[in-house]
Amino acid sequence: MIYLTGFHAIEERIKAGGGIVSLLVAKAGPRARELVALATERKIRVDRTGVFELDRIAPDNKGIALQVEATSASNVNLTLEEFLAGLDTDGEERRENVLVAVLDEITDPHNYGAILRSCDQFGVDLVLTRNRRNARNADIIAKTSAGADAWVPSAATANLKRALDALKQAGFWIYGADMKGEPVYSKKLAGRVALILGGEGAGISRLLRESCDALVSIPSCGRVDSLNVSVAAGILFYEVLRQRKA
Amino acid sequence: MIYLTGFHAIEERIKAGGGIVSLLVAKAGPRARELVALATERKIRVDRTGVFELDRIAPDNKGIALQVEATSASNVNLTLEEFLAGLDTDGEERRENVLVAVLDEITDPHNYGAILRSCDQFGVDLVLTRNRRNARNADIIAKTSAGADAWVPSAATANLKRALDALKQAGFWIYGADMKGEPVYSKKLAGRVALILGGEGAGISRLLRESCDALVSIPSCGRVDSLNVSVAAGILFYEVLRQRKA
Repeated sequence: MIYLTGFHAIEERIKAGGGIVSLLVAKAGPRARELVALATERKIRVDRTGVFELDRIAPDNKGIALQVEATSASNVNLTLEEFLAGLDTDGEERRENVLVAVLDEITDPHNYGAILRSCDQFGVDLVLTRNRRNARNADIIAKTSAGADAWVPSAATANLKRALDALKQAGFWIYGADMKGEPVYSKKLAGRVALILGGEGAGISRLLRESCDALVSIPSCGRVDSLNVSVAAGILFYEVLRQRKA
Repeated sequence: MIYLTGFHAIEERIKAGGGIVSLLVAKAGPRARELVALATERKIRVDRTGVFELDRIAPDNKGIALQVEATSASNVNLTLEEFLAGLDTDGEERRENVLVAVLDEITDPHNYGAILRSCDQFGVDLVLTRNRRNARNADIIAKTSAGADAWVPSAATANLKRALDALKQAGFWIYGADMKGEPVYSKKLAGRVALILGGEGAGISRLLRESCDALVSIPSCGRVDSLNVSVAAGILFYEVLRQRKA
């Protein structure tokens, strides 16, 4: 079981639905009462519980927690094949502008959640990761994504290299974010785009780098480290959206 | 006294210099030994200390801590007047492209540190805040900024409204980041630009909003919350740099 404790995360999850067991209420302040009303409206079970008991099972709680099945950390998990099939049958016309974010070894749940939040804001169509999300981190991810993990479609695959081949087959251009790449604004990022983001420090693994059509960078003039990976992700998503709209 | 404990933060601070009392060493792994060598080279005092004593004064330490005077949380504090005077006497020519980030009520030290890191990356010339930085948060800020707080010039003022007037006087255009603003890429952000960022939730205070020449937004298509403020800051700094270079 997973216990979501952030008010915002709980609200977004109730609205998204899926895999919810019950809303546990120990102390009902104004914000908690709103969530109880929302849960009742959506026919979700609400259980009173003791403060000490809730602290034991969900230490970060602010008087309330949403109990969710561990296998449904996100209700929008799908396979890459399902996603690609959906692109071609989506209405009559072929969908031209599609953005897939490929996360390679981004293991820190705070960074992962922050990236999901930006994915939601910039309308990223799919987040592709190497492995199933770690259920233990689901609460951190729900919080740092401000609940966006309940909305953003995601797919996991054991073999990212093969997944990139499937994306190429479906007409995607593969871009890798790398400090040594060309400035991202010098590239035309229209159409079907997959953008690979590597972990802070190590960057994109060599195997995936070889699959890239091009490497793109965010120009900088800094003296210290590179950008935080979630900030870098936000900037790259923004650039894709800017080019589509401008 | 402040104790910096992140390896990266310690390294950047030693390189930047200023206000350093001594480097305290309890356990010397490879990374710590490098820092001891760097400190010795820079003629900074190195003191051996016990593991328990270091844990008491700097709980987050990884065997090493840099003791810094509390008043010098940043060694690049200056007044707005000093900064503006520097713009006009900086060589023979008037500096045209100048970017000032104005942080209005951004109190969370993680967000503040993340913004400083992006300021460094995108060459923000000055960070202007309402109050002196809170020394208690200096270690968090040093860590989340990856040491950039040792480099990024900053000024604090009790009266931000008056500071904006002084910036206008010096030829700056004042832009406020606001979801209701025009898309940031539709604005020409060349020349002397001051960009106001408000806290998450409340945004820019009404008084400062009135001082803005225009409000600018980051277009989005998300379902949940707005962007994280440090991601938003990174995107806006990027856009300024992109317009200058493209």
